[in-house]
Amino acid sequence: MRLTSLSPEAGLARIRCGMRYNTHVNANGGAAVIDFQTSPDRYRHWQLSFDGPIATLAMDVDENGGISPGYELKLNSYDLAVDIELYDAVQRLRFEHPEVSTVILTSAKERVFCAGANIKMLGLAEHGFKVNFCKFTNETRNAIEDAAANSGQHYIAAINGPCAGGGYELALATDYIVMVDDGNTSVSLPELPLLAVLPGTGGLTRLVDKRRVRSDRADFFCTTEEGVRGQRAVEWRLVDELAPRSRLLETARSKAAEYAQSSSRPCNAHGPLLAPIGRRIESDHISYPNLGVELDRERGAAHITIGGPQTGPEDVLRLEQCDESFWPLALARELDDAILHLRFNEEQIGTWVFHTEGDGQLVADYDRWLLQNQDNWLIRETILYLKRVLKRLEVSSRSLFAFIELGSCFTGTLLELALAADRSFMLNGTREGREEQPALIHLTRMNFGPLRKCNGLTRLENRFLGESAHLERLEGLTGEDIDSETAAGLGLVSFVPDEIDWDDEVRMAIESRATFSSDALTGLEASLRFAGPETLETKIFARLSAWQNWIFQRPNSVGETGALQLYGTGKRPIFDRRRV
Amino acid sequence: MRLTSLSPEAGLARIRCGMRYNTHVNANGGAAVIDFQTSPDRYRHWQLSFDGPIATLAMDVDENGGISPGYELKLNSYDLAVDIELYDAVQRLRFEHPEVSTVILTSAKERVFCAGANIKMLGLAEHGFKVNFCKFTNETRNAIEDAAANSGQHYIAAINGPCAGGGYELALATDYIVMVDDGNTSVSLPELPLLAVLPGTGGLTRLVDKRRVRSDRADFFCTTEEGVRGQRAVEWRLVDELAPRSRLLETARSKAAEYAQSSSRPCNAHGPLLAPIGRRIESDHISYPNLGVELDRERGAAHITIGGPQTGPEDVLRLEQCDESFWPLALARELDDAILHLRFNEEQIGTWVFHTEGDGQLVADYDRWLLQNQDNWLIRETILYLKRVLKRLEVSSRSLFAFIELGSCFTGTLLELALAADRSFMLNGTREGREEQPALIHLTRMNFGPLRKCNGLTRLENRFLGESAHLERLEGLTGEDIDSETAAGLGLVSFVPDEIDWDDEVRMAIESRATFSSDALTGLEASLRFAGPETLETKIFARLSAWQNWIFQRPNSVGETGALQLYGTGKRPIFDRRRV
Repeated sequence: MRLTSLSPEAGLARIRCGMRYNTHVNANGGAAVIDFQTSPDRYRHWQLSFDGPIATLAMDVDENGGISPGYELKLNSYDLAVDIELYDAVQRLRFEHPEVSTVILTSAKERVFCAGANIKMLGLAEHGFKVNFCKFTNETRNAIEDAAANSGQHYIAAINGPCAGGGYELALATDYIVMVDDGNTSVSLPELPLLAVLPGTGGLTRLVDKRRVRSDRADFFCTTEEGVRGQRAVEWRLVDELAPRSRLLETARSKAAEYAQSSSRPCNAHGPLLAPIGRRIESDHISYPNLGVELDRERGAAHITIGGPQTGPEDVLRLEQCDESFWPLALARELDDAILHLRFNEEQIGTWVFHTEGDGQLVADYDRWLLQNQDNWLIRETILYLKRVLKRLEVSSRSLFAFIELGSCFTGTLLELALAADRSFMLNGTREGREEQPALIHLTRMNFGPLRKCNGLTRLENRFLGESAHLERLEGLTGEDIDSETAAGLGLVSFVPDEIDWDDEVRMAIESRATFSSDALTGLEASLRFAGPETLETKIFARLSAWQNWIFQRPNSVGETGALQLYGTGKRPIFDRRRV
Repeated sequence: MRLTSLSPEAGLARIRCGMRYNTHVNANGGAAVIDFQTSPDRYRHWQLSFDGPIATLAMDVDENGGISPGYELKLNSYDLAVDIELYDAVQRLRFEHPEVSTVILTSAKERVFCAGANIKMLGLAEHGFKVNFCKFTNETRNAIEDAAANSGQHYIAAINGPCAGGGYELALATDYIVMVDDGNTSVSLPELPLLAVLPGTGGLTRLVDKRRVRSDRADFFCTTEEGVRGQRAVEWRLVDELAPRSRLLETARSKAAEYAQSSSRPCNAHGPLLAPIGRRIESDHISYPNLGVELDRERGAAHITIGGPQTGPEDVLRLEQCDESFWPLALARELDDAILHLRFNEEQIGTWVFHTEGDGQLVADYDRWLLQNQDNWLIRETILYLKRVLKRLEVSSRSLFAFIELGSCFTGTLLELALAADRSFMLNGTREGREEQPALIHLTRMNFGPLRKCNGLTRLENRFLGESAHLERLEGLTGEDIDSETAAGLGLVSFVPDEIDWDDEVRMAIESRATFSSDALTGLEASLRFAGPETLETKIFARLSAWQNWIFQRPNSVGETGALQLYGTGKRPIFDRRRV
């Protein structure tokens, strides 16, 4: 965790904002930001080591390394600082370590695995920070599952001591859980009895949906502070295997060897080093190599402009030379960072407007090249990363607009931004004094499968739910120029104002968004963006998180006599027993 | 709407409790309760008329007929009093009117269809009442859809004037929407721009999932106060057909004739009159003919004991004599009423414990008889009603326990109560001084399909998610005696204490439940009860309702300067623009 700060004092002030937010301390000038970029040489909380196809990621939280003052991260409890490093490690394991087919997730502390999210931190944190923190931690756990599901990189949890709350939820995100059988080590989800909140990092959903723990056992388990240990934990499917303490890592390694045999990870490849992203944050501007953000604070909008590739893939690199600077990977990293930055550091910016600039043909060339070469592990990873970033975008509590203007390149992968948007506007015709041809959009094969939403549908399937004939028709238009009126007719864009109406219409769309309740918009967007089926991921982000957000507002947890506030004081919470 | 009250003053006080709840006014003695029983002769808000296979249900809200003082139900806006009558009408249309294949839902007011839930009522209502009110209204709209899906009884909305918010959500629950094309009549969901809340009666989900309105159009629609009218409403799939005012009902009747041709409703049958339920409410006891409720206020528990049938179906009635007093229908009605009563009038009772008494063989006989005769419309309706009541049970915000004791009859349909429970306890062996044989449970075919949960799974499929071999094994045990240890081994019950442990174990289970936060339990149970797939119903009760519950707690809607509080005052809300 690094703080980007022009002055250390401002930095602390801003970080405390995350906890005790002061709406006047923020934004312009020298205020610090929460930075999601880090690298293993700077980790304070994790040890990452390698042994051929097996990596070991050991949690070793520095008690004094929290992102904010006011609490100590005892017993491997975590806060955002710890989770930012975890996310970094998970990403690097995908990209920098193609040889790794299994990651053993364990603890470097004697006799404790992880005590979960730090309770004092949660008690101090503002509502918005709690919600954002949980969302980010959820996304990282989903990324762990994505590694197994799509990249053949499996995670094994080796539980060496008590594993509680968020600690067990982290284990639940792995593919296999080995636990020490010593009469003391247990797994538990004590959030409800101790804190009057839910396990908020997917625990409830993963219990019944992923591990298929019987719901009555899950009910007992989640209402029991002490958790479950030993044979009962196996019988109830809470863990997969027990091991004596002396054989814990050996047991995990033996399972790792199984995974290695069936993994599609290459043993001899070398991954690109994920070098620091060249980012510059100024008061109302953030610039990246391929992406710029302009903040319109008055209207509460961020204009995010993505630059298309400068050259086609065949011209600049052969597959083996592909490194972290190549356009699709660089774009994914920059957009990922920008989303996280805006989520945590710019809460008043409620609308994100996407623009693109560049040559759509080059985007289409990249899309084709990526899909032609997806047997290559790094290309596969890059596509999967783009998919995850687009998912992160859609679970962001921000209104998403896309403006398709002259000189834009909403093609294939970049068209997904417009399809992800709550509304898109495409300029009909040209503009006086501008030489560019009218805007066009283009479908590529990227729009028909590789970049699925959290609900398992492509954005086109979600948009045209059940309309298979129309989807076939669209697939037939792959590669064709689609002008604004055709796009509107096909339902690919929302509105197509001409130059006479454009400025007023898009300005009013942004301004009216700023007049609405931010909370109601969040609920509306979370409901409308996901039509059709639900998945583990959507159940976590919608059902579970929405209930948790509600509980995070209820006096029984956050009121003066609520359990989360009183935890550790020795006082007993006083509950309103009325059921709602 | 009738108020059961021993004194009118106490009645008013208690009803106001729903709005401005006073925890000390309740419970014992002469306090009034919200009563869900009514009948057409007492309707104040609806006109129900019949013309052969077509019924017309016309909304005609009495402005002064609200359930609580403090607001007028102008413009066909509704509150709980209106919706209790609607639910009654929907039920009677199923049971008393087999000849009705189509219900035209319209308004008896000139030039207004329905303005939705009364805003002043919502502004005055306590959080718990708002949530409970929305849940009940949702259940009634789901029952409207269930009529079409399973009984061949279709609803058509004939929109004769502005149709806003909950008014449009009611129309969305029908199968076909005809709207007057007069340049003025529109459909709208103005909750977000006007009140900073969501359309909370399924509107968002039905827009994108049921009617497959494109999400960007839905976004525009839900953020536009004035709504959409005329041809655009058809093009966007918000309504199905337009008609001139003079031809509105004719158009609806023409569609009704289509439905009548394909309906499986019998034209010549006569339905049983749903006579008033013989219910007696005393301070801590509620008694029905087949069901008794004992309230343990100290422990916050209701003990609900269901009596099995006294005789088998073949002995007492032939099919054509089947009326409202026959056991499965009577049970469904009584349990339905008891759930609603406890939800609204006993908020401090957080745990519902189910007991049964009777002869399991007779329950099995009824189950077999019902399934053998399900081609009969009334038997089909009865099974469908049992299904809906069990669904209502599971979306109740109460902990559900089942105690399987000596003399119980947890068989088939009644076993569903134990399978719906968050935990079940089955006595292992006998008890000293009691002559009964050890408790047994029995599976019938009712456990394998007819009584599916909201998520579309049987309770056994939900309990044993993906375990098809085990489900087959259970199916093979249909009709067999299953004792406590076998039941535990099969995973059908949670715990099997013997007589030495029973009293302590069940007491502690109830008492510990009462020590937990009521809100956290609600979120936990809502998450654990529904494994696997999601449906329109679960999306409404989980995703949408959970977001709405959160928003109902947020200052932007319910704070002093929130939109819901300020509506109608002429003052503009002041929003916290931070996105959470």
